[in-house]
Amino acid sequence: MSKRNSHWVAFQGERGAYSEIAARRFFGEGIKLLPRESFDLVFKSVESQKADAGIVPIENSQAGCIHQNYDLLLKHRLRIVGELNLRVEHNLIGHPGTALGSIQMIFSHPQALMQCQGSTAKLKGVKIIAAYDTAGSVKKIKEEKLLNAGAIASELAAEIYGMKILKKGIQDNPENFTRFLVLRKTQKPPRGANKTSLVFSLMNVPGALFRSLSAFALRDIDLYKIESRPLHGTPWEYFFYIDFAGSPSEPNCRNALENLREIATFMKVLGSYPRDARKP
Amino acid sequence: MSKRNSHWVAFQGERGAYSEIAARRFFGEGIKLLPRESFDLVFKSVESQKADAGIVPIENSQAGCIHQNYDLLLKHRLRIVGELNLRVEHNLIGHPGTALGSIQMIFSHPQALMQCQGSTAKLKGVKIIAAYDTAGSVKKIKEEKLLNAGAIASELAAEIYGMKILKKGIQDNPENFTRFLVLRKTQKPPRGANKTSLVFSLMNVPGALFRSLSAFALRDIDLYKIESRPLHGTPWEYFFYIDFAGSPSEPNCRNALENLREIATFMKVLGSYPRDARKP
Repeated sequence: MSKRNSHWVAFQGERGAYSEIAARRFFGEGIKLLPRESFDLVFKSVESQKADAGIVPIENSQAGCIHQNYDLLLKHRLRIVGELNLRVEHNLIGHPGTALGSIQMIFSHPQALMQCQGSTAKLKGVKIIAAYDTAGSVKKIKEEKLLNAGAIASELAAEIYGMKILKKGIQDNPENFTRFLVLRKTQKPPRGANKTSLVFSLMNVPGALFRSLSAFALRDIDLYKIESRPLHGTPWEYFFYIDFAGSPSEPNCRNALENLREIATFMKVLGSYPRDARKP
Repeated sequence: MSKRNSHWVAFQGERGAYSEIAARRFFGEGIKLLPRESFDLVFKSVESQKADAGIVPIENSQAGCIHQNYDLLLKHRLRIVGELNLRVEHNLIGHPGTALGSIQMIFSHPQALMQCQGSTAKLKGVKIIAAYDTAGSVKKIKEEKLLNAGAIASELAAEIYGMKILKKGIQDNPENFTRFLVLRKTQKPPRGANKTSLVFSLMNVPGALFRSLSAFALRDIDLYKIESRPLHGTPWEYFFYIDFAGSPSEPNCRNALENLREIATFMKVLGSYPRDARKP
């Protein structure tokens, strides 16, 4: 695993983003970081082998699934090789000399602003400004010397940019988790893979979903996640996202996938990887 | 149905919100509108009978499920009595005398800002500012006479506040739909109910989900939607959200629900209502 640490890892956002925390926790402190402006560029960096791996959020306990990253998984030829559940703690960050009471505007990513709406609403007369990134907002108020501004971001972002945490843990719901996926350009599942993610679609006929789930149930394969998503443009078709216990190296999982392939109008295995058993 | 039109309908946001459009499309133009600051207050207005009905978004084709409203459905004693699929079209709105080129800042709800990120990123040097509401942002730039500001909101909001659409349809994905639920304080499903929503939880044992779906499949009951959501705090339990075809007035649906009740550790029928068969 030591070689793993010399890897370049791409993530969306500026240095100090929650994805960077996830990357460092997954790979260890030795990795080289490749911050990218968008999720699409994270996928492209890994596909073009500028990065050895990428890490992207896939679902949040508050906001639900990040469908965009499922769409990118369908579009690009990468595999999920790992996952990590991260507790997200938002902080109000300012300049070292700034007092909480002198904050007149707060910058952050729209998602973070939404998750802190309750806390920020209490700060009367403060302007809430959307930026493209959480950590990028800390960088911005630092570089532009905005002494009366705050940014909502991670503790790591405060540390990296030498800024101060004015208020810790300001998210409205303390139980705020994000699940991250680690991506590589490979077809081989990593050692210890015991969880598999896949997408498939079915014709919308009664019992179709049940028949497709029987592929797993009749082989005692447990499901961790299931979600249906209507396919726009083709109104009566659905995508199903499923995570199940096991990997195609086990005959019963291989058989289940072959069985499902007979039933599905479309199917793609997104990857097999070791499960992060920590909550959620 | 004429009596329906004299009803008070509560929705989240200011006049001109997408929820107002959904309310008017569902009930017709004769309704009285009760704008509320939060989803929680919409539920409370219906529960305390200040409003005869409420309308809230439950899922968006881009952003996925609005878990908060599922949580409020569990907390309050209201029933879903209708649904409506609305195509969401975001517009950049300004003062009648304002030109697109003179816009220096744009206000809107974080969700709308996220859905227009691609379009607004092209407007160099423009500040993107988060506000608590889309239509409320139009009201704000009007009242504060912000001639160099724009707001992202519905066409209706532009109309209501006498403002101009500077750019139509600026959402990044043209296929942007939101599904709304209509809520009442009643236990009786409306006439024509042919779709039912419910929440249940299961112990996380292999095959539990399959067994619970067999309650529907063995009776040829079709599913429109399924989603699992991990229960935080109780790491190995899940909530499942299901929409199925039919209502408990039909014996096979009634039997399916009784069957499911035997298997589930918790179950709540959220309501039966006529399905909106328009896409998605």
